[in-house]
Amino acid sequence: MVHIGIIGVGLVGSELITQLSAYNKSFKVIALLNSTKQLLSNSHTPLDLSNWKNDLNTKGTKSDLTSFINYLSEAPTPSIVIDNTSSQEIANSYPLFIEKGLHIVTPNKKAFSGDLKLYKEIIEKSREKKSLVYHESTVGAGLPVLSTLTDLIRTGDKVIKIEGIFSGTLSYIFNEFSKFDGEKKKFSEIVKIAKENGYTEPDPRDDLNGLDVARKVVILGRLAGKDLSLKTLPVENVVPEPLRTLSSATEFMSSLPQFDEHFEKLNATANNNQQVLRYVGVIDPIGDKSEVKLVSLPSSHPFASLKGSDNIIAFTTQRFPNPLIIQGAGAGAAVTAFGIFSDLFKISDRYFK
Amino acid sequence: MVHIGIIGVGLVGSELITQLSAYNKSFKVIALLNSTKQLLSNSHTPLDLSNWKNDLNTKGTKSDLTSFINYLSEAPTPSIVIDNTSSQEIANSYPLFIEKGLHIVTPNKKAFSGDLKLYKEIIEKSREKKSLVYHESTVGAGLPVLSTLTDLIRTGDKVIKIEGIFSGTLSYIFNEFSKFDGEKKKFSEIVKIAKENGYTEPDPRDDLNGLDVARKVVILGRLAGKDLSLKTLPVENVVPEPLRTLSSATEFMSSLPQFDEHFEKLNATANNNQQVLRYVGVIDPIGDKSEVKLVSLPSSHPFASLKGSDNIIAFTTQRFPNPLIIQGAGAGAAVTAFGIFSDLFKISDRYFK
Repeated sequence: MVHIGIIGVGLVGSELITQLSAYNKSFKVIALLNSTKQLLSNSHTPLDLSNWKNDLNTKGTKSDLTSFINYLSEAPTPSIVIDNTSSQEIANSYPLFIEKGLHIVTPNKKAFSGDLKLYKEIIEKSREKKSLVYHESTVGAGLPVLSTLTDLIRTGDKVIKIEGIFSGTLSYIFNEFSKFDGEKKKFSEIVKIAKENGYTEPDPRDDLNGLDVARKVVILGRLAGKDLSLKTLPVENVVPEPLRTLSSATEFMSSLPQFDEHFEKLNATANNNQQVLRYVGVIDPIGDKSEVKLVSLPSSHPFASLKGSDNIIAFTTQRFPNPLIIQGAGAGAAVTAFGIFSDLFKISDRYFK
Repeated sequence: MVHIGIIGVGLVGSELITQLSAYNKSFKVIALLNSTKQLLSNSHTPLDLSNWKNDLNTKGTKSDLTSFINYLSEAPTPSIVIDNTSSQEIANSYPLFIEKGLHIVTPNKKAFSGDLKLYKEIIEKSREKKSLVYHESTVGAGLPVLSTLTDLIRTGDKVIKIEGIFSGTLSYIFNEFSKFDGEKKKFSEIVKIAKENGYTEPDPRDDLNGLDVARKVVILGRLAGKDLSLKTLPVENVVPEPLRTLSSATEFMSSLPQFDEHFEKLNATANNNQQVLRYVGVIDPIGDKSEVKLVSLPSSHPFASLKGSDNIIAFTTQRFPNPLIIQGAGAGAAVTAFGIFSDLFKISDRYFK
């Protein structure tokens, strides 16, 4: 039996609980915590999850990370804490979780893309305490991106370049905006549709500024042995300069049409060369050419034919001079929870042969 | 320490030894066997691999699978036997290997695509004896195909369809033959070039008959819970009927140009509809539409833009209605050995947390 405590029960957390309940073997959820409440089972028995939302509200006590972690760490090994938040504060506590003998599974990018000192502390402590820290869902959600990179590296392949479209939102926006055929829409219209469908952050500038992609580039870079940092990584912010300081998303959305011509010019230049615009992240594990940028790609490039909000990641290595490519939905609750669940199996595999 | 015995030291086996030697930690090769000779170390210490080819020839004794397996099974746990052959006879011995407490890693398709009784015996025995049987390299070489399918299934996703181009040889032949632009060559010329470059089997009919693709379809189908069989799977044999009975590859190659017109007609029909010809395998885990066939695909299809001899595999599932796609080199010693090496790590992970 694997004991599980879940921090964060929003969209991804709820979906994970649904997936775990359907499976209903080996994995035993014994604790839930959100920003206000927590629900701990009795004596490390499984929680009845049939009505967990209501139970958390009515039977839950005040949220207290310390007692939550202590309860989990007192369960028989193995115990896993799942962090479904995007909280820096919880990420800062990973070394403590590891000290307490817990394994960690998370889609939270903060610990792996932020302060390098925290990252190294987590890696070192996890080795020392034989704790496992899996975070497949931080890049491309459930797509097997980090597991593939790990396999390439540990079997001695030499990674030459990793390139990808790492944001479902920016994938959708540029796939819709920059194409050879089909109906053409204005840039601001596409952003509006994306926002209305919930594809963007509440303020779409939080997608368009490239920070989310930059975090994924840093995560892959570090895994490939290059100590990238958000502070020094060149990142192209697609938000037009005058719109960056506007105080609200509403103001941004109403001003964006003024820049449709600017985006249309970029697109026309690309199209005239039989190319399309794509927002890519590049990881250069050997040199210093890692970056995040809007580029023009020829129609024959695998990224040019991308559809919908798919992610795509291409690994060019010594063994794969023609890159190994992984493509598919890289955002959304179902596929993110799938990535978390796969990581849970990877930990449980090590205990139950 | 993981103890390893290697059966088959041809192209793939040699490359694996090179990769393992470069890594040089945790994995300890203690026995080698080919069709004539075997080399066992002393008291389960690692073999010195610096000059293994010569050592096998000069110090090796007569090949004897029984003593080889016994030696391996007497080593401290875990011990893994790697079968790099394509031998049915060795595949038939997997249940015995498992009985002896060995784990198995192999790119040999025979056990997983042949007799269903053997397959089920291997699955059941491996569960009972807690032996691990990994065969990632049987489909798409080192591409993470079987691991991804396993993760999808065990986390409760519902696989709706798996479709792919599973033969590097047929990928190359049809990518070159059926395309919208670039130099056009005759079908027989392309097969000739492929043969001369070593992309085909000694007799290219062994690629064109579709049996190799059929084996991969059966492997994926069984993993997805459908008991497919080579005996009943519909497989389109691309070899023109009159050429199937010719007794030699030389005769086949010299007669193939007579059918260039036949292939050109197929291609022209596809091209006139803005489509290209591709040789695909389809797995239908729910119904009975699994098959192997030559199809026409529109230019926007992800399989249409495939290059070189790449494989491509698309998983359509409940969570990935827009398919999860994996693409890259699916044949060759370096990437096949990479798949085997990744499997070795998956076993060793379970012992050394």
